[in-house]
Amino acid sequence: MSEIRRLLDANRDYVDDHLGIADAEPRRHLAIVTCMDARIDVFAALGLDLGDAHVIRNAGGRVTEDVLRSLALSSHTMGVTSVVVMQHTRCGLAGVSNAELEEVTGTGIDFFAIDDHVETLRADLKKIRDTPYLSILYEVAGFVHDIDSGHITEVVEA
Amino acid sequence: MSEIRRLLDANRDYVDDHLGIADAEPRRHLAIVTCMDARIDVFAALGLDLGDAHVIRNAGGRVTEDVLRSLALSSHTMGVTSVVVMQHTRCGLAGVSNAELEEVTGTGIDFFAIDDHVETLRADLKKIRDTPYLSILYEVAGFVHDIDSGHITEVVEA
Repeated sequence: MSEIRRLLDANRDYVDDHLGIADAEPRRHLAIVTCMDARIDVFAALGLDLGDAHVIRNAGGRVTEDVLRSLALSSHTMGVTSVVVMQHTRCGLAGVSNAELEEVTGTGIDFFAIDDHVETLRADLKKIRDTPYLSILYEVAGFVHDIDSGHITEVVEA
Repeated sequence: MSEIRRLLDANRDYVDDHLGIADAEPRRHLAIVTCMDARIDVFAALGLDLGDAHVIRNAGGRVTEDVLRSLALSSHTMGVTSVVVMQHTRCGLAGVSNAELEEVTGTGIDFFAIDDHVETLRADLKKIRDTPYLSILYEVAGFVHDIDSGHITEVVEA
C-alpha cells in the first residue's frame, strides 16, 4: 500500500473522534517557527495544546522570506504577538556547508545552512525585528532544542 | 508571565518523560506540507507517529521556494520519497484576495492567496513535479482537510 493510501485510511479513525476548534486565532497569541525534523514533538516539548499557536516549519527552522510572509498574516490577521524561533541539535542543516548541500542535492539553491546556532538565531531574530510590518510583535525569542535530552534553552531574546 | 517563559517552564516536564529518536530519517519516508493553522493536528489527522515524517508548515500550506528548498533536503539527504500537500477549509488565505491581504498587513508581498483548493493544489503539485531536482520523488498528492469534521479528501495525485 502506498504511503498516501495509508494516510487516508488512518484519517477515517480521526473523523470519528474529532473535536473541532471553532476559532482560527491562536489561543495563546503565539507562533512557533521550527525545523521540519521528524523527531521534534513541537506540542509536547513546549507544553502546547491544539489551538494555542501557529506552527511554521521548514528545513532548519530558518527565518526565510516565506516565514516573514506567514508571520505577517499571523500578526496582522490572527492576533499573534509572540514568536519563538526554535532550532535543534543534530540538525541536517548544521555543521554542513551550503556548497556540500548543493553538491548532494544537485541544485544551486541557498540552503540556509547553520554554522552556529546562537549566531544564526541572532541573525534570524534581527531579520524579524528589522521587518517594518512585524514591528507589532510584542516578544520574539530564539530557542535551541536538544533533540536527545528534550531540553530547550533560550539563547536570544529580541 | 510572558508566553516565552511559560513555554520554557513547560519544557521542564517534557525533559523528564523524554524518549529520544535516534534516526533523523523519517521512518515512513514521508514529508507533509501543510498550513500553520493552529487547529490542524497533523499527526492525529493522518495517523502519524513522531519520527514518521518531515512536517513543513507555512501560511496556506503553499508550495513556495522555501518549501522546494526543504523538499530538496528531505528527498536527497533524508530518504523522503512521498510528499503530501494538505490545504484545509476555513483557511485564512482562502476566499480573500492578495490585494486585500496587502492592505490589512500593510505590506507589498505576495501572500499566495487561495481562490480554489483543487486548482491551487493542482498548480502546487505541478510546481513540485516541474522541479528537476525533485524528480526522485515517488508519489506526490494533494489533500483537503475539513477543519470542522476532520475528514481529509484526496483531490490531486501527481
